[in-house]
Amino acid sequence: MLPIISIVGASNSGKTTFLEKLIPELAARGYRVGAIKHDAHGFEMDRKGKDTWRLSRAGAEVIAISSPGRFASIRRTEGEMSLEEIAARFFWTEDILITEGFKKAHFPKIEVFRSELEPKPICGPGDNLAAIVSDDEVDTQTPRFSFADWRGVADFIENRYLRDRKKRKMLVQLDGKQLPMKDFVEDFVSGGIKGMLSSLRRWENPRTISIHIRQEAGD
Amino acid sequence: MLPIISIVGASNSGKTTFLEKLIPELAARGYRVGAIKHDAHGFEMDRKGKDTWRLSRAGAEVIAISSPGRFASIRRTEGEMSLEEIAARFFWTEDILITEGFKKAHFPKIEVFRSELEPKPICGPGDNLAAIVSDDEVDTQTPRFSFADWRGVADFIENRYLRDRKKRKMLVQLDGKQLPMKDFVEDFVSGGIKGMLSSLRRWENPRTISIHIRQEAGD
Repeated sequence: MLPIISIVGASNSGKTTFLEKLIPELAARGYRVGAIKHDAHGFEMDRKGKDTWRLSRAGAEVIAISSPGRFASIRRTEGEMSLEEIAARFFWTEDILITEGFKKAHFPKIEVFRSELEPKPICGPGDNLAAIVSDDEVDTQTPRFSFADWRGVADFIENRYLRDRKKRKMLVQLDGKQLPMKDFVEDFVSGGIKGMLSSLRRWENPRTISIHIRQEAGD
Repeated sequence: MLPIISIVGASNSGKTTFLEKLIPELAARGYRVGAIKHDAHGFEMDRKGKDTWRLSRAGAEVIAISSPGRFASIRRTEGEMSLEEIAARFFWTEDILITEGFKKAHFPKIEVFRSELEPKPICGPGDNLAAIVSDDEVDTQTPRFSFADWRGVADFIENRYLRDRKKRKMLVQLDGKQLPMKDFVEDFVSGGIKGMLSSLRRWENPRTISIHIRQEAGD
């Protein structure tokens, strides 16, 4: 799976503003960047009265709109999909996924911190905090970068998560939940799958393989 | 792949209005319906100045927004993705995909026709026209339904495209393209995969299994 880094911080701490510097920096270094924002209160991407809104209201579970150069989809979900599933399903061509928010997920975090908003960083022990972006002194062992040092943050991300990273090559989900596997089991299962499929016509050493199996009760 | 039906017709012929009747009818019959609209002129699902718009402008290739109950993503594409790829990637839980527009694709079409807008239906020979929705007399052999007869259209779709269709239990995609398989090969491969996975802890006879494998050059 691709690396996932979460940019967290209090409301109005400047997360999006910082990302407007960091994302172009990573893109300029040749990485394909995906971004996801969490919105606890629901969102309106679709406008009342527009055709897509009308199709959704009519009962379509997924609506999409396709045009030259852009594709969008909106899906009704039961609860929320996990970041792992989202990453695998929707960010299949990206090199890195940057999340704005998602503090509760277990991915490495970079906190944007302003002491005039909060007395101390919102990430505590166990929050997997990797770095802090702040112009204030912070009492912590965590590496700190100033707001103007998005290049330093890009270096940090690149060195720590993008270069020489262990490339997880297979993600298996049962009913949407990741099935954990040791490395040799992963190699065994993915080797078995590739072995079976590669004997079929039309196999041409693809970059990505996706398999979806539905089991009926009793299978 | 799930069945794809295209609703086509001149501008303002009433395609969306008809779909607002047809989609709930299919949903009420227990089918999970996906819908897609084609927009030749690009679209604006995102609003200027909103955070997701800012992340996209900063250079993110894919942006997504997740909230309890809804998930949306916008992807920059080179040209347009094919309907086949869209169906497989974005409509994996649906039973049917209804397109509004996409006259040029080769899927079965239902044309919404009003003689005050056009002298004759826009679909000609070779357009894979399956039915016409119109309150006007039309000189054609194609089955015709009145605008008020969305139940008749739902019966037509159900009988022709949804009943007795082979329920495909496994979908394999290589770089997004479906790998065709004979039934016994499908059973052999899915049996092999389930056999390997079921020996692992945490296997509890799931309803769905999703596997994503990335291969690097040289693997």
